[in-house]
Amino acid sequence: MSPPSWPSPSPTDTFVQRRRRLQARLDRPALLVSGLSRPRNFAGNRYPFRAESHFLYFVGRSLEGAALLVEPARSVLFAPEPDPEEELWSGAMPSFAELADACGVEVRSIDDFEAPPETLTVPAQDAESAAFQSDLVGRDIFAGGGAELDEADARLADALIELRLVHDAGAIAQLRQAAAATAWAHRAGLAATRAGIREAAVRAQMEAAFVAFGYTASYNPIVTVHGEVLHAHRHDGELAAGDLLLADVGAETPEGWAGDVTRTWPVSGKFSATQRALYEVVLEAQSAAIAAVRPSVRYAEVHHVAALSVVRGLVELGILKGDPAELTARGAAALFFPHGVGHLLGLDVHDMEDLGDRAGYAPGRSRSTRPGERYLRLDRDLAPGMAVTIEPGYYRIARILERAEEVGDLEPHLDRRVLAQFDDVRGIRIEDDVLVTKDGAEVLTASIPKTAADVEAAVGAAT
Amino acid sequence: MSPPSWPSPSPTDTFVQRRRRLQARLDRPALLVSGLSRPRNFAGNRYPFRAESHFLYFVGRSLEGAALLVEPARSVLFAPEPDPEEELWSGAMPSFAELADACGVEVRSIDDFEAPPETLTVPAQDAESAAFQSDLVGRDIFAGGGAELDEADARLADALIELRLVHDAGAIAQLRQAAAATAWAHRAGLAATRAGIREAAVRAQMEAAFVAFGYTASYNPIVTVHGEVLHAHRHDGELAAGDLLLADVGAETPEGWAGDVTRTWPVSGKFSATQRALYEVVLEAQSAAIAAVRPSVRYAEVHHVAALSVVRGLVELGILKGDPAELTARGAAALFFPHGVGHLLGLDVHDMEDLGDRAGYAPGRSRSTRPGERYLRLDRDLAPGMAVTIEPGYYRIARILERAEEVGDLEPHLDRRVLAQFDDVRGIRIEDDVLVTKDGAEVLTASIPKTAADVEAAVGAAT
Repeated sequence: MSPPSWPSPSPTDTFVQRRRRLQARLDRPALLVSGLSRPRNFAGNRYPFRAESHFLYFVGRSLEGAALLVEPARSVLFAPEPDPEEELWSGAMPSFAELADACGVEVRSIDDFEAPPETLTVPAQDAESAAFQSDLVGRDIFAGGGAELDEADARLADALIELRLVHDAGAIAQLRQAAAATAWAHRAGLAATRAGIREAAVRAQMEAAFVAFGYTASYNPIVTVHGEVLHAHRHDGELAAGDLLLADVGAETPEGWAGDVTRTWPVSGKFSATQRALYEVVLEAQSAAIAAVRPSVRYAEVHHVAALSVVRGLVELGILKGDPAELTARGAAALFFPHGVGHLLGLDVHDMEDLGDRAGYAPGRSRSTRPGERYLRLDRDLAPGMAVTIEPGYYRIARILERAEEVGDLEPHLDRRVLAQFDDVRGIRIEDDVLVTKDGAEVLTASIPKTAADVEAAVGAAT
Repeated sequence: MSPPSWPSPSPTDTFVQRRRRLQARLDRPALLVSGLSRPRNFAGNRYPFRAESHFLYFVGRSLEGAALLVEPARSVLFAPEPDPEEELWSGAMPSFAELADACGVEVRSIDDFEAPPETLTVPAQDAESAAFQSDLVGRDIFAGGGAELDEADARLADALIELRLVHDAGAIAQLRQAAAATAWAHRAGLAATRAGIREAAVRAQMEAAFVAFGYTASYNPIVTVHGEVLHAHRHDGELAAGDLLLADVGAETPEGWAGDVTRTWPVSGKFSATQRALYEVVLEAQSAAIAAVRPSVRYAEVHHVAALSVVRGLVELGILKGDPAELTARGAAALFFPHGVGHLLGLDVHDMEDLGDRAGYAPGRSRSTRPGERYLRLDRDLAPGMAVTIEPGYYRIARILERAEEVGDLEPHLDRRVLAQFDDVRGIRIEDDVLVTKDGAEVLTASIPKTAADVEAAVGAAT
């Protein structure tokens, strides 16, 4: 594996074409704001700014305090004017002419913006950005309110979803870069692992691996010996020789495109027999799910394939008893694999989740309330150009397995004596980024060690 | 130099004593909120939460959505109740009993909070947190509005400043830990430097050095070959053999205490004669300023010592012509050293800057509008237990040196022909964290290479 290259920006034409395609779908003007940076402990100490995804899709750079007006016949980028006082501290800002050239769009001062009547928009994520947006469009916008749009703004949201759901060549090139940087991080994490250090030491090396090449984290890294905590964000655990380490870490390009990969590896470089057996169950489920990914397949079916495969594997190991298909229908997978098999991937690691389930669920479909399905973030028919994650897992979660109301009438099908033999496995997840192609699927993150043997060989190895 | 130890929490009694001291200063109840995490690109993808500093000072942990009520006779911590659904994803939350034990305070549910009449508060930094706070205290709180308090809240702010200005043993122990982690990062940055890599590669190693041991960045790292951009946050520059690399990077403990250090080193491991000459000017100014730090000295005087020293050095090199004292009085230092010599250091890297200049400027003092002094963030009489940074610099900034309105009548005193000989220096800053002691000062970050010879030896060296 070779280190990632420094991220390349998308060609200007990518953004020109995207804006044209949005223009063609609009009968009213639309405003997409970049937003404002968030203060940390005081106004002068702010979190790194990352523009709203809908803005990035059409502009490609995190310009703070800017907005893109898209009208049926043209687009105009409104940006803050370079401020000499600010430039003393932060360096030269691009001139409007430079911006116009780089983005292929007319650029004007945000101070001169006046919203045309009936301008559509979709809400920014935080309250300061939403206030900035409210001022621009002249009506109240509620931060993070993308799941509750009125009918007019919902038409804009649907147009955005239509464009962003199927990735163009520019988007795919960005996702490939994010995947390569993510792969490098996992290689670094495998290499850094040894007993006696803390989770934080591995996390630091994984993040450094892509930060060194100009990428950032697409979400807060999960690097934990407690894989059963699905989104564990503590990193103080010490790695013991018998532990599995679960690392869910992804890189993001400067244009905002995300990678999202999980690997689980033995701290010692050698799976125990029980760890290996369960690892193979999860890996088999992931392979089966990836094999099911192709155009026109409904994503809930991919989830079902993974769930059935997990149950079949657990029956083979004797942890579950009964007919796999029947057990799966009764929700047995959710005892050990309570989350969905994956989600959309794009500019957001859960792509367009700011719009609630509008992007993830096709019109007429909505979330099931059943265990194992209620956390499924995606149920569309797949189409070429869509990108999804495939990430089944196995977890021994006390608050599921030790509560009668969760296990319910599956109790007789659960062999707790056998389960106890697998006590050295708390959590395993295997996740890749998958692009739907014309006749199947391409795993964008295929270069990362994944078979048990490959993973074992990579632990502690030189990069 | 040895790696930092994993951060140790302050003893419970530290917080008990701090709350008592605040209680003794209040004649009305006060509420200090922790705040809420900030969404990044969608609600489920948030920046790492870091509680408000005034809350951390009295509680010591970043509990999201919590608030501390301090009344003259008692303190109560109001915290969110553990949520089983949330625990599936994020792991077990401490019970109220565990929290009470760890923090030495009564703990109750935030849902049961009712503000006593006339409760004082100081504003949270972002709008969501301020809205949370407004709901709790029953009046409108404006995010980041700490510089514009009414008279009653200002009394609370003054009590907070009185406590936080002079560090107790717990605070000093935290600052020492932050300093040690910061030192380790600078050692890693020096070691990682070589021509041909990007700034990002050095930045990644510096940050990883403290993240590996459980610390976070106290501010966005500056690692740049363009030191003349005071707060440069791009990291795409390539390191050339003749460049100086300026690294302004600090670590923060989990309780929120900050380190803040700048070093400037030659990419090649060898200063050129001109680089070395200017490096010595800045180092001499820093030494003189540190030597001036002791109880009862006014901080503006420390700034003046540094400014005079810089001017004297530049006169010796022939860049400036004239009498150093007279030139300094006429603002000549600001042509090359336009910022203040430092600031308060504590829980915030610019400590208590959320309260505007109320903490940094003693009552009756206010900012000068003169070049070189208008950015001075601190002008108090120093006292034992205060911590400050000392960070003079030299910068060749085009928008100062190439504009007649900035140079003004100092033009005849500026030898541009000599200045041109120092073209291989764009920016140098040398910054340490200094604790005022009973009879002088202690440099908390003294273990970081600083003399020209030590810095040269550390570039590219094994850690």
